[in-house]
Amino acid sequence: MIKAGIVGGTGYTGVELLRLLAKHPEVQLEAITSRSEAGMRVSEMFPSLRKKVELAFVAPTLDSLAACDVVFFATPNGIAMKEAKALLDAGIRVIDLAADFRIRDVALWEKWYGMQHACPELLEQAIYGLPEVNREKIAKALLVANPGCYPTAVQLGFLPLVEAGLVDVDYLVADAKSGVSGAGRKAEMASLFSEASDNFKAYGVAGHRHLPEISQGLSIAAKRSVGFTFVPHLTPLIRGIHATLYARLVADADLQRLFEDRYANELFVDVMPPGSHPETRSVRGSNICRIAVHRPQDSSIVVVLSVIDNLVKGAAGQAVQNMNIMFGLPEDAGIDLVPLLP
Amino acid sequence: MIKAGIVGGTGYTGVELLRLLAKHPEVQLEAITSRSEAGMRVSEMFPSLRKKVELAFVAPTLDSLAACDVVFFATPNGIAMKEAKALLDAGIRVIDLAADFRIRDVALWEKWYGMQHACPELLEQAIYGLPEVNREKIAKALLVANPGCYPTAVQLGFLPLVEAGLVDVDYLVADAKSGVSGAGRKAEMASLFSEASDNFKAYGVAGHRHLPEISQGLSIAAKRSVGFTFVPHLTPLIRGIHATLYARLVADADLQRLFEDRYANELFVDVMPPGSHPETRSVRGSNICRIAVHRPQDSSIVVVLSVIDNLVKGAAGQAVQNMNIMFGLPEDAGIDLVPLLP
Amino acid sequence: MIKAGIVGGTGYTGVELLRLLAKHPEVQLEAITSRSEAGMRVSEMFPSLRKKVELAFVAPTLDSLAACDVVFFATPNGIAMKEAKALLDAGIRVIDLAADFRIRDVALWEKWYGMQHACPELLEQAIYGLPEVNREKIAKALLVANPGCYPTAVQLGFLPLVEAGLVDVDYLVADAKSGVSGAGRKAEMASLFSEASDNFKAYGVAGHRHLPEISQGLSIAAKRSVGFTFVPHLTPLIRGIHATLYARLVADADLQRLFEDRYANELFVDVMPPGSHPETRSVRGSNICRIAVHRPQDSSIVVVLSVIDNLVKGAAGQAVQNMNIMFGLPEDAGIDLVPLLP
Amino acid sequence: MIKAGIVGGTGYTGVELLRLLAKHPEVQLEAITSRSEAGMRVSEMFPSLRKKVELAFVAPTLDSLAACDVVFFATPNGIAMKEAKALLDAGIRVIDLAADFRIRDVALWEKWYGMQHACPELLEQAIYGLPEVNREKIAKALLVANPGCYPTAVQLGFLPLVEAGLVDVDYLVADAKSGVSGAGRKAEMASLFSEASDNFKAYGVAGHRHLPEISQGLSIAAKRSVGFTFVPHLTPLIRGIHATLYARLVADADLQRLFEDRYANELFVDVMPPGSHPETRSVRGSNICRIAVHRPQDSSIVVVLSVIDNLVKGAAGQAVQNMNIMFGLPEDAGIDLVPLLP
Repeated sequence: MIKAGIVGGTGYTGVELLRLLAKHPEVQLEAITSRSEAGMRVSEMFPSLRKKVELAFVAPTLDSLAACDVVFFATPNGIAMKEAKALLDAGIRVIDLAADFRIRDVALWEKWYGMQHACPELLEQAIYGLPEVNREKIAKALLVANPGCYPTAVQLGFLPLVEAGLVDVDYLVADAKSGVSGAGRKAEMASLFSEASDNFKAYGVAGHRHLPEISQGLSIAAKRSVGFTFVPHLTPLIRGIHATLYARLVADADLQRLFEDRYANELFVDVMPPGSHPETRSVRGSNICRIAVHRPQDSSIVVVLSVIDNLVKGAAGQAVQNMNIMFGLPEDAGIDLVPLLP
Repeated sequence: MIKAGIVGGTGYTGVELLRLLAKHPEVQLEAITSRSEAGMRVSEMFPSLRKKVELAFVAPTLDSLAACDVVFFATPNGIAMKEAKALLDAGIRVIDLAADFRIRDVALWEKWYGMQHACPELLEQAIYGLPEVNREKIAKALLVANPGCYPTAVQLGFLPLVEAGLVDVDYLVADAKSGVSGAGRKAEMASLFSEASDNFKAYGVAGHRHLPEISQGLSIAAKRSVGFTFVPHLTPLIRGIHATLYARLVADADLQRLFEDRYANELFVDVMPPGSHPETRSVRGSNICRIAVHRPQDSSIVVVLSVIDNLVKGAAGQAVQNMNIMFGLPEDAGIDLVPLLP
Repeated sequence: MIKAGIVGGTGYTGVELLRLLAKHPEVQLEAITSRSEAGMRVSEMFPSLRKKVELAFVAPTLDSLAACDVVFFATPNGIAMKEAKALLDAGIRVIDLAADFRIRDVALWEKWYGMQHACPELLEQAIYGLPEVNREKIAKALLVANPGCYPTAVQLGFLPLVEAGLVDVDYLVADAKSGVSGAGRKAEMASLFSEASDNFKAYGVAGHRHLPEISQGLSIAAKRSVGFTFVPHLTPLIRGIHATLYARLVADADLQRLFEDRYANELFVDVMPPGSHPETRSVRGSNICRIAVHRPQDSSIVVVLSVIDNLVKGAAGQAVQNMNIMFGLPEDAGIDLVPLLP
Repeated sequence: MIKAGIVGGTGYTGVELLRLLAKHPEVQLEAITSRSEAGMRVSEMFPSLRKKVELAFVAPTLDSLAACDVVFFATPNGIAMKEAKALLDAGIRVIDLAADFRIRDVALWEKWYGMQHACPELLEQAIYGLPEVNREKIAKALLVANPGCYPTAVQLGFLPLVEAGLVDVDYLVADAKSGVSGAGRKAEMASLFSEASDNFKAYGVAGHRHLPEISQGLSIAAKRSVGFTFVPHLTPLIRGIHATLYARLVADADLQRLFEDRYANELFVDVMPPGSHPETRSVRGSNICRIAVHRPQDSSIVVVLSVIDNLVKGAAGQAVQNMNIMFGLPEDAGIDLVPLLP
């Protein structure tokens, strides 16, 4: 059994990790930390975990995590970069669900995240944990930067086109819509039910932190710098991201076949039949990304629809998938879940 | 492996049975029938089941179900009573998720359901499948009448009080609230998003079909006929029932202890700590009923709060629980699920 | 034109007052105060008011309100009791939408609200602003205590029965359900979309502040102290309260006629035809209370269904109704609105 | 007073017309027709209209509408084209809220709407009722084709850019999101609460009927045929459309100024300050279109955000606006409404 710890388990990615790890056949939950809630039983904060998780929160010290084989950071940005080194030095593998190790260019990271990076020397060894791109590196990684939710949905949708050189990478557009859980479990006005329900809006059009992460991934795939426009929107659902992607074709191809071939061996990417419109609820609670590719009116514009559950494939599920790869387990161990519908 | 069939798998209880049985360690899905959709792959209707359920719908004939050990009826009322006998005669056990075998008094059933009962002779042997009451009879049953959703939440909440003779059973009140999936997957005006969303209403105050079912159960527990008022409401959530129960105490007791003792050995009933307010989402996607008991202002009125997921403990999950009991499996096999929160 | 001021206009009752007063034919908005937002244009905080309300927030001083004929307090509890006296002394009439002047028994108020009352001497002259009970007193009042949202729905539903002495007032039960806007525009965890959406729960079963307010009103109507059980619930809608009321009949009567007669001359109470189930959306955005009375199964239990929009008849609309009465305007001036459906 | 009739008043645009016309200072509701519901009082179907609209539905005959000055068709596509001529011949002006007279090219209309046009000779005189483009023609029109909901939001967002020749009109992209009421008041599976709630999806990517309508409008503005990609999405809200528009700039300009100047005299188009993100709820229940224009990362891609209430500016409200123009009334008579927020 792999002994797992979670740092910062009071948010939505934390409780989702607990849901998944509590039933993982090869994992034993060893510790979960919270500075503010130390001493409280996890199931007191999240009654959904009553009789499923018996742990109590402990203070976030190295000691409390010393027995772990792997530690997940489900913390705000800026925590893991301060604490990962000590864990790695103690031989503990680390998976950061925040953004600390996602951007290779330190200056770029510091510009978008508005703080100084505390541990740039680890960036070299951190592996960007998108298994569909970096599976082999992840298998050997000690430190994994788990991708953001939007970046997962957008990159998986664009990759086949960009890798194949079929689209004009100077003008890639992602119009993305997220459920409100993406904003985290924080008492903020804009996330109130009475503000976010029966409402739809764009936000961060001037610039969202997931933009440089996506640009980095697409540029690597394109082997050149891409031009990328990203408009995120808030939509009144709890879980789910729907990315609608637009690009101009510069060459012809059987797009359906291209996508099916690209993801033929991927357990968690489902290329739907031609003409499909994937729904966010079709992946609710599961680690699956469903994709459909369209070329409306036979024009030169390709439209890709890509959906994930932001808390699973967009966060906790992908983190467990990365852990499975890192420890040589079956990639779907503990995350072979049937979506909850309706 | 137990071979299971489903008659009428195109509704919400059908797709929920599929979700649960697809991952049940001791069950092999053998057949799923639909008169209207024969030939269509199940996953074409429910993309959430892609790569999880490979079956296609078949026409509902005895032949198509002959290889089954157990058949679930996820049909409208009035179907199972016509088809169960042939299956039972063929040695196949039957679990009816509809109401055909729930009421022991045929005349009463016919009055409330507005049709003649096609098979009253089976009522004698049909066991009402509320495991917390009838576990031993279920274990030997060939035909199980799976309880309704409201009746499950209401009876589990009232039973400790009624069995102990602590309340005035002439004036029991259940104010119950259900999510919209309780109305089924039927194209009806009142269930439209634009009608049911951002809205709350009572319905069926003059008389709801679950009233005689609940009265029957509470009368058995009370060993006399009870007086029972039942007001169901429609609330804008997909899954979930919240029953708020009111009764007048006629004797004193430690109510918390009473409930904890009554359900001490029940895997799927969770008596919460004093002062709790169970939320429907705390059981979303799981087979759990959570209960809290209150005596506000130290008055003689006891208030019980009882929540379930109407599609799981209120339908498909309880059906699987009954199957587990009938076949001597661990009672939680395949249904030991962690609720999905948020 | 009546010159109106609003103290504390940044919450939901504040913005709703602005929506109503902006189009009131006899009112001129004179000032709106906010300690924290002084200087900001109202329409910057609430873009729905762009080009409809040109005011900016000002600091809450007596000077800023000196030109007003009437001042509405849309503040948290405990503010109006400190500031009303100075306004009254300056000849300005006051309508408090909070709870400061609703309870006549100071000790009871202090127990439930957890603070010392700053101005008990004003309680004598404060009129409880339920027009259907106190219209004549309101017409002469200088200080009106606008009722709470639950108290409005519950009292209007119970009053005909209690006033007529038809029910056992020792055992009145109100099972009430409120939309999330009732919790106000405050950044609190429990009001987050991801917490409150797709969820249903009771809260405050041990005791909610509206309990003594309702008990006081019903006791006045009954001319004796009543026994009252109140269970509020949170339901995932923005606006709306649905109160389901239960009582035991102690005498026979034509209940439909009783209700129709009681409210025959009321502009804002709509007694629906027999067998009706009023929906919260049928009053969305309007000042109407719709009521239906049932006697299910011809038992001795009477069930009353009462719905209001908590921000209108339960707060801002009723406040404007009170203002109209106080200033001799047509009672529906500015609030004769058609509900928004769907 | 203008005497108004409504043909087909049982859908959402019908009840919305009733809400607006019931309070219109210059309109008297004369008749409302419904083949299926003749004889039923309107307020029986829509309790929100109790005491506001006293009419009953009548059979849809010419006689029943003969006294009208104007008749609104709130019918499915294909009805108005059969009935408008008789009304026009009788001197009654007609406003069609369906699509029958929106497309000038009969063959194109027949291709997209899958039926033969019953009255192509009227197309010549039909005026496309987008006041911000055709105000003067509308003023003299006898027959107005009220625009579709998506076309209103998309055209108002693109027009300033296209009219000014600032963008590459070969590659215009509209990613549009609609609330569920846009699907109408029809008992369809996909519009059920349990299907559409907590879910997000694209639909009609291969081709939506609003595409040729938008292309026609933009081509007129561009004075050449445009290339236009349109992807509509269904989002879980009742009312509201959010259009996110993408185009490539081919010339430089002060975009904020451009939009402000274009709409400087428009009562119902609100150009928001730079950096704004208009929310659908900020126009809920009102006839306003709010627009923000962005140029993220100073790239050559311009992003326009445009929101309307699909039932008001996208249907009934714009129809009343057209009526006001046709009859020389103040353009905002009866539709100068404050949005309902929250």
